[in-house]
Amino acid sequence: MTVRTVVFDAYGTLYDVQSVGRLATELCGDKGELITQLWRLKQLEYTWLRGLMQTYEDFSVVTRDSLDFVLERVGVRSSTTIRDALLTKYLKLDLYPETLQALKALADYRLAILSNGSPAMLDSLVEASGVRSLFSQVISVDPVKTYKPDPRCYDLAAKSLGAVADEVLFVSSNGFDVAGAKRFGFRVAWVERGGGAPPPSSSAIGPTELFGLLRGGAERLGCGADARVASLTDLPRVLTDLAR
Amino acid sequence: MTVRTVVFDAYGTLYDVQSVGRLATELCGDKGELITQLWRLKQLEYTWLRGLMQTYEDFSVVTRDSLDFVLERVGVRSSTTIRDALLTKYLKLDLYPETLQALKALADYRLAILSNGSPAMLDSLVEASGVRSLFSQVISVDPVKTYKPDPRCYDLAAKSLGAVADEVLFVSSNGFDVAGAKRFGFRVAWVERGGGAPPPSSSAIGPTELFGLLRGGAERLGCGADARVASLTDLPRVLTDLAR
Repeated sequence: MTVRTVVFDAYGTLYDVQSVGRLATELCGDKGELITQLWRLKQLEYTWLRGLMQTYEDFSVVTRDSLDFVLERVGVRSSTTIRDALLTKYLKLDLYPETLQALKALADYRLAILSNGSPAMLDSLVEASGVRSLFSQVISVDPVKTYKPDPRCYDLAAKSLGAVADEVLFVSSNGFDVAGAKRFGFRVAWVERGGGAPPPSSSAIGPTELFGLLRGGAERLGCGADARVASLTDLPRVLTDLAR
Repeated sequence: MTVRTVVFDAYGTLYDVQSVGRLATELCGDKGELITQLWRLKQLEYTWLRGLMQTYEDFSVVTRDSLDFVLERVGVRSSTTIRDALLTKYLKLDLYPETLQALKALADYRLAILSNGSPAMLDSLVEASGVRSLFSQVISVDPVKTYKPDPRCYDLAAKSLGAVADEVLFVSSNGFDVAGAKRFGFRVAWVERGGGAPPPSSSAIGPTELFGLLRGGAERLGCGADARVASLTDLPRVLTDLAR
C-alpha cells in the first residue's frame, strides 16, 4: 500500500538528546560529558527493564531515576540544583538543525510522533520547539504502560492513527526502535546518526565514542530497516522509492 | 518462611564474564578490552530487547549476534577464527576464585542455578568447571522463551524447584537481576562486584571503567536487595540473618 503517514520517534530522531551536554559541562565540569552519555544509556536501560519487569513508571520517572543513578555513580554530590537544571533542559531539547526544513518538505503527508516520553514531556518538547502545528498527533506510549520496542507501543500508534501498518513509514535513529517498528509491520527508515570510523584502539575511547559504538550501527535483532538515511532531509526520496 | 534453597545467577555471579578479556587481547591486541566490555553490554541489551519484542532466540544466538555487532563496530574484520575462539571461551568461563569454597560452605542448602544461558551453554559451563554435583538443578530460561528480569523466568525457577518464592534466596551480581528477582518475591542477595571509587573526570575513563559505572551500583528500579555482600563467601552470614 502507499505510504500516507509518517511517524517519527522523538528523542534522538527529531530532538538531540546530546543537547543536554553543554549544560552538563557548565554544571559538572569535566564530568559533564560522562554524565550526558551515561544518562542516556541508563535511561534506555530502565525503559527496557521496566517494560520487561512489567513495572512501568512514566518517562519522567525513568529519566529522573537514571540521572540520579548516574550522578551518584560518577560522584557528583546529590545536588538539587544540578539535577533540576538538567531535567528542565530535557523538557526543552534542541531540534536537530535539519528537522524543521525536513518536516516542512513532507507537507503532503500526515505526520505524527510516537515516543516513550510522557504526555507532559512531549507537550513541553513540541511547544518549546514550535512544531506542534506540523503534527496531526503526538502519541505517548503511556496508555499502554510499556516502552518501545514492545509491539504494543507501535500498535497503539497504528490504532490512534486509524492506519494499516503497511501504509505507515516509521522514522527513527534508534536501532532498537527500528527493529521494534519493523517487527510490528511498519515500513521503517533508519536515520543513521551514530556512524563514524571505528576507533584505532581501546585507549582512544572516551564516553562519547563509547556511546556511539554501542548505540550506532545496525542492531542484529533480525528486523532491519527498509531504508537507511543520513539525514531527515532524505525522507522525500525514501517515500518516492517506496511508492514505486 | 525459612530459606531452604539458594538459587544463583551464573554469568557475572558464579562465572567471570570478564575472563574472556585475556583471550580477546591476545586475538585483537589493544582492542581486546573494548571488545570484552562492549560485548557484554550489547549481549545484555539484546536479551532485554528480544524479551520486550517477543522475538526470543536462545542465548547462544544472542551471544553470537552481540559479538558480531561489536567486532564490526570496532573494525575487526569479520574473522571466523576470532569469533569462534571467543565463543568457545564463553562456554568455559572461569569461576570467580571464591566460588567453589563459597558453594561448599552452603552444603546444608539445596543449591540451583537460574540463568539466561541456553541449556547447552549451561551444560558446558558446569561441566568444564566441575561444579555439576553441587547443584540440584541447573535451570535455563529457555522453556519460557524470554529473559531475566521478566517475572516468568523467576516463576519458572520457583515451579521447577517446587518452592514458595519466600523460601528461596536468589543471589546475583547483576542489578537488573536483583530487581527482577525481588519484584517476583524471592529473597535476594546482591553480590556487589561493580563497586569502586567514582572517576576523577570524563577523560580518565576507559571501556572497563565505563562498564563498571553502568553495570555497578544499585539500580533505581524500585526493588532493592535484602542483603548486599562483597563476596559469595558472605552468604552463610546472610542466611543466618534471614533465619532470625
